[in-house]
Amino acid sequence: MLDNLFADRVEEMSNGELAEFMKLVGQGDVLSFAGGIPASEVFPYNGLKDLNDRLLNDLGAEVFQYCSTDGSDNLKEYIVGFLGERGINTSKKELLITTGSQQALDLISKIFINTGDNIIVEKPGYVGGIGAIKSYQANLIGIDLDKDGLCVNILEEKLDRIYAEGEQIKFIYLVPDYSNPSGSRLSLERRKKILELAERYDFYIIEDTPYSELNYFNERLPFIKEFDQDNRVIMLGSFSKFFIPGMRVGWVCIEEGMIDLLTKAKQNTDLASNTYGQELLALAGNSGLVDEQLKRVKPFYKARLLKMEESLQKFFPENTSWYQPEGGFFFWVRLPENIKSRDLFQVAIKNKLAFVTGNSFFPVYQDGNHYIRLSFSDTTPAEIEKGIALLAGIIIDY
Amino acid sequence: MLDNLFADRVEEMSNGELAEFMKLVGQGDVLSFAGGIPASEVFPYNGLKDLNDRLLNDLGAEVFQYCSTDGSDNLKEYIVGFLGERGINTSKKELLITTGSQQALDLISKIFINTGDNIIVEKPGYVGGIGAIKSYQANLIGIDLDKDGLCVNILEEKLDRIYAEGEQIKFIYLVPDYSNPSGSRLSLERRKKILELAERYDFYIIEDTPYSELNYFNERLPFIKEFDQDNRVIMLGSFSKFFIPGMRVGWVCIEEGMIDLLTKAKQNTDLASNTYGQELLALAGNSGLVDEQLKRVKPFYKARLLKMEESLQKFFPENTSWYQPEGGFFFWVRLPENIKSRDLFQVAIKNKLAFVTGNSFFPVYQDGNHYIRLSFSDTTPAEIEKGIALLAGIIIDY
Repeated sequence: MLDNLFADRVEEMSNGELAEFMKLVGQGDVLSFAGGIPASEVFPYNGLKDLNDRLLNDLGAEVFQYCSTDGSDNLKEYIVGFLGERGINTSKKELLITTGSQQALDLISKIFINTGDNIIVEKPGYVGGIGAIKSYQANLIGIDLDKDGLCVNILEEKLDRIYAEGEQIKFIYLVPDYSNPSGSRLSLERRKKILELAERYDFYIIEDTPYSELNYFNERLPFIKEFDQDNRVIMLGSFSKFFIPGMRVGWVCIEEGMIDLLTKAKQNTDLASNTYGQELLALAGNSGLVDEQLKRVKPFYKARLLKMEESLQKFFPENTSWYQPEGGFFFWVRLPENIKSRDLFQVAIKNKLAFVTGNSFFPVYQDGNHYIRLSFSDTTPAEIEKGIALLAGIIIDY
Repeated sequence: MLDNLFADRVEEMSNGELAEFMKLVGQGDVLSFAGGIPASEVFPYNGLKDLNDRLLNDLGAEVFQYCSTDGSDNLKEYIVGFLGERGINTSKKELLITTGSQQALDLISKIFINTGDNIIVEKPGYVGGIGAIKSYQANLIGIDLDKDGLCVNILEEKLDRIYAEGEQIKFIYLVPDYSNPSGSRLSLERRKKILELAERYDFYIIEDTPYSELNYFNERLPFIKEFDQDNRVIMLGSFSKFFIPGMRVGWVCIEEGMIDLLTKAKQNTDLASNTYGQELLALAGNSGLVDEQLKRVKPFYKARLLKMEESLQKFFPENTSWYQPEGGFFFWVRLPENIKSRDLFQVAIKNKLAFVTGNSFFPVYQDGNHYIRLSFSDTTPAEIEKGIALLAGIIIDY
């Protein structure tokens, strides 16, 4: 291996724990709170099977042909309607279909980031977002979260300092709703404050919304994009979490003037997203299957969330802490000071139990030493109770 | 638009003509030699429809779940066999599934290229390859092609000079079989010579093989990878051209020690490729549909190639030139000195005729001023005759 030929960014690239964890997902004998993937048993299999037949009959061989780089017109039209019902007025000209919203993160990073550029992320924040941004060798600046999302007072202070020093930031990357891994939700007041800061200092907000439909207790708060008068917000979305993930279909909503640039970036990256998946999702949306599914998944995941909360309350020791999320897939648990999450993982996996260590979710790896992410999405209530009891025992005996 | 926030690479990124041309594909009233896409009417639609039913029944809801980042095990197993029949001994541990082989180009560029690094490409070469490499701000060095592929004497001189000056190259990007756009095929002797140079100077060869199965007249020459004793060759492949493209499934065959790194890069780029497409292709391969289709497409495209050769001979004036390719999808035509391809395109499109101008296929845009690429893959023999006659008239009257 000629590793002397590798690019400098190889050192910056995320350590790939997510890929390792996704491999664990496939090992049937491990009770896994790691994956954070949606539960296959709730997928609308029969509905999709029927639509699949219709799709093949309607489109014929064209469903196997290349799609244009910017994406399926049918799907974009559906997304315009979907967003319209959610307070976002947009048009097909402001949409680009991506290979999952992960690709949107890669493309946004590609068009904005020079080596060393300042980018603000949540601390803890989505590992795939941090990974994408790191791979373009940005200077990642993490801002703390609490249950109400990003701490805007810390953000404002940080920004004041950065701009006072003649520096700038390119964008802030946010998952405002039920974020991965923390489960926090950005308050309405903070949403407005962050937009105000973006306008004051002229940077972009990347508003990533994979879990926004998975609100189990309250009404969803308005997207930041809804208040955006001046194209400061670039919105990302995905069908993966509330519908199905295997098609790898996401989208970016961005001002029309930047669609061409983003399309060029995508052209060089994977030419186009898969045709079949885009058309199947468009058909599922237009035939009402997506709306139906939304009604189905909320009580399904809510029951699991409540079971995990109950089990944590029941089994976990006093020197651990967490808050109950109001949506999404994740609990974020702080361990006792004497336990590092990576060490705990080694013991847990010997007991056929998996979770995700906190480290990867921080710009500075060590900051996550005492946190773990527990996903309740892909385990039954009985497994949740059993697994949390087992994990609690390991922590108590540590 | 805050274009002051854009990354420097935005200027380097390909001008996106391919995306524009892909849009033309969708306009029914244009007779297009531009797309270079496979013909939908030859897709094995009925076979795929049957397999699709089997796939949904066999895999159930799991076909809609995430796939692991490195790709479907079933598909990798099929590809190991496919390559084995073609002289390449490999294993699943040396394969990564990508979102089309375009993504492989992006990932390879991501792990190797620092700003300003020397990368050698064919001149003319695949626009998507040049685009991917440019977007990582490499210094592109083009080496001329003739009918027998890359001119290795020019390559050797260039390399001698580069290394004498204390510089190096990271890799050379090649499409040895029926290359896009030139249609040339790298001779056996040159394949061996390029490998020898890679071993002498310690750089990688990226051997991209999208058209390798589309040999209409002769036996396919051995892949460079077949002679590779020392992991100097990274091989890319795709089902898009000889089977179906809409699934966006390609692959990289690379030494095992580099799979993890490439997987990390993919994880940050699109997390995983679509599950349905990977499993459908594995099933198509294992059930014999891919082999069947290979027998079907060769005479189909050969007839179109011969019709285009015949029409060019019949209608094109003496001051144009080309050579008949032995496979693939493309003729590469040199125009008279007084005609620039972009100007010709403007006249042609008014006459509802499209092709691709030569410019995008060169590291230096102007080098392609007098070339056009004519694809015969997606037009009927009757359309080919009509379109070539029309284009000849435009050139003669210019």
